[in-house]
Amino acid sequence: MPTRLLDEEFDARLASVRERIAASDADAGVWFDATSIEYLTGFAHVQTERPVVLGVAPEACAITVPRLEVERCEGNPRVDRVHDYFDYPGGKPIETVAEMLRGMGAGSVLADADGAPGVMGYEGPPLSEVVEVETQSWVPRMRWRKSAAEIDLIRESATWANLGHRYLADFTEPGAHPATVSQRASMEASRAMLDALGDRFVERVRASGPVQAGYISAHETALPHGHTPNQRLREGDVLITGATANVDGYRSELERTMFVGEPTDEQAHYFELMLEAQDIAIEALGPGVPLADVDEAVWSYFEEQGITDLARHHVGHNIGLGAHEPPYIDRGWAAHCGSETTSYDESDATMRPGHVYTIEPGIYTEEAGYRHSDTIAITEEGIEPLTYFPRDLEANVVR
Amino acid sequence: MPTRLLDEEFDARLASVRERIAASDADAGVWFDATSIEYLTGFAHVQTERPVVLGVAPEACAITVPRLEVERCEGNPRVDRVHDYFDYPGGKPIETVAEMLRGMGAGSVLADADGAPGVMGYEGPPLSEVVEVETQSWVPRMRWRKSAAEIDLIRESATWANLGHRYLADFTEPGAHPATVSQRASMEASRAMLDALGDRFVERVRASGPVQAGYISAHETALPHGHTPNQRLREGDVLITGATANVDGYRSELERTMFVGEPTDEQAHYFELMLEAQDIAIEALGPGVPLADVDEAVWSYFEEQGITDLARHHVGHNIGLGAHEPPYIDRGWAAHCGSETTSYDESDATMRPGHVYTIEPGIYTEEAGYRHSDTIAITEEGIEPLTYFPRDLEANVVR
Repeated sequence: MPTRLLDEEFDARLASVRERIAASDADAGVWFDATSIEYLTGFAHVQTERPVVLGVAPEACAITVPRLEVERCEGNPRVDRVHDYFDYPGGKPIETVAEMLRGMGAGSVLADADGAPGVMGYEGPPLSEVVEVETQSWVPRMRWRKSAAEIDLIRESATWANLGHRYLADFTEPGAHPATVSQRASMEASRAMLDALGDRFVERVRASGPVQAGYISAHETALPHGHTPNQRLREGDVLITGATANVDGYRSELERTMFVGEPTDEQAHYFELMLEAQDIAIEALGPGVPLADVDEAVWSYFEEQGITDLARHHVGHNIGLGAHEPPYIDRGWAAHCGSETTSYDESDATMRPGHVYTIEPGIYTEEAGYRHSDTIAITEEGIEPLTYFPRDLEANVVR
Repeated sequence: MPTRLLDEEFDARLASVRERIAASDADAGVWFDATSIEYLTGFAHVQTERPVVLGVAPEACAITVPRLEVERCEGNPRVDRVHDYFDYPGGKPIETVAEMLRGMGAGSVLADADGAPGVMGYEGPPLSEVVEVETQSWVPRMRWRKSAAEIDLIRESATWANLGHRYLADFTEPGAHPATVSQRASMEASRAMLDALGDRFVERVRASGPVQAGYISAHETALPHGHTPNQRLREGDVLITGATANVDGYRSELERTMFVGEPTDEQAHYFELMLEAQDIAIEALGPGVPLADVDEAVWSYFEEQGITDLARHHVGHNIGLGAHEPPYIDRGWAAHCGSETTSYDESDATMRPGHVYTIEPGIYTEEAGYRHSDTIAITEEGIEPLTYFPRDLEANVVR
């Protein structure tokens, strides 16, 4: 199974944006967003107050980075020229970008924003102070449809997420601390992944491991974004788990509702309602299906069961380099695509081969939450589930 | 030692922004930034594509959240009214904000941005479509100066970071995997912190523990933002560590350069140069000191030693709710404060009591990097180091 993207993948992406640049009146494309820069070049960095700026012209590809990123860029086969400023704010990043663009003969550009994002306190001049700027949002839209190579990486991520999840189940017992079980499962699964892949592993994680597995427990599961409580596990606790692994920047999402010991009849009831909702959503997926219809199908089921008051969120979202990516499986998606505030049109309202969705309808009582999440690719013919930990009640009771 | 902020702290922050609102022509203040909302109310959430929007008027405090955050807000003593939309994009967040502001009688507002940030694919209308908007950046500036209560939390964070760091040193040996040592130290220190603090621990972490300790090793240390290599530790490896702990949202930063086995003469030489640079920076700190002078002092030392080519970044940054916060200890800071692209003026160019800085000058050869980082508060009389793992060579050699 491949564990890294090959050069061809990046060449195709750059060729695609170069076509658009050639078809425009602009001289170059410019990107400030870290994920977009990674998508086009494979150069991954942590977005901080120090701007990183990519410039792509028909015949050139240059980047402006703070001094601390120079060595990591220099070996990148896509990047012809690395410009650097020492640090922010003393190093004048936008002036360095101006120089870079002058060197590329770019007097007018199509940029993903008119300046660097205001992350971690960055404040700086707009790019339009130094060059003529129109904006584009090409890359976020390109990322919707994953190539076969990208889906391979998400599939590989699902393998190691599954191992992390298996360890979560294995290490769970009354009296154990949920944080410790989580951290131990992450550690053991990371170690297995690192040792299994060896040189094929692409280093992407800093001071930790590539697998993150863990859960929230007890009353905190009633909150979709709950925290892990400082309370040891007890018989009767509900768990909502999550497991993922970083494979050359790509990730999968696997979540399960589990029980410490036998669930009560009420817990089993809500579990089965949730599982049926997930079945309905999975059943509804496919190429050409309007995203809104999938969320609508689940909502209709909730209405039928009289449990719309237990719903807290829509069915799911796209996933890949980002943990949440558009499009979203949301009843309002079709209307959103037609609206003036987005760059999307009606043709963006349906699922396409290459989209990879999390399917995670949930219901939440005052006492606990119930949600599975699976990562599923849309194919030409139908769907391919990528995550695969058993979904049924029996497999998710820890005895 | 306190481990959570008390109500008075938030009352004082809200009183401060209310004074500014009262002194303006606007009817209310509005915030979209997750950290600013947390700072003003104590309501902490993960910023996603679903906007969360706080409105503060002289007599009212209301918030707009996606349905999934309602339960977490409702108990918040600062928030009088919670408005919710179901999800994004179907739920129309900005229309919900418009309704919230109408309910507050706010026809004109001072907002931290003209709309929600474009996180995880969010696209939506500007706030100025529904209300008159001017922008302000009050909260990021307020966060510079920490109260005694905030510094208490950072001091508490340093305690648990120190334990995590001690475990890193204890678990390090030739043949161990750097990712496994990192994850094990995080797990053991988290467990100790959770068990020691008990009910005093404020739950803030999801599916993991509150202490994060780890390192990058060998050739990756040559990159200031290097990754952890998939290569077991060997005698002669240089490590650059990092340890922190989350205490009610606040963090400290502790980093050390360590050696697996005896360092070579060359390694010891670079270590001592780095240590001297950190000493010079610490010596230069104090209330009323221009930030730029501290970075300049280190740069002069690098010039004197003929090693400016080994420098990759400035001396440090403020820290608190954010991992990197302005102001930055950078030679260009004074000029930045005078420039048109910031909201800062000359009076912002100097260190003040309550600022908390990381002090982390580094040098980087082709083979390895050398950097300690300590977290140090500026006081009325001088400084108070908050992190305290030994800095000398002997204490950082693992035999």
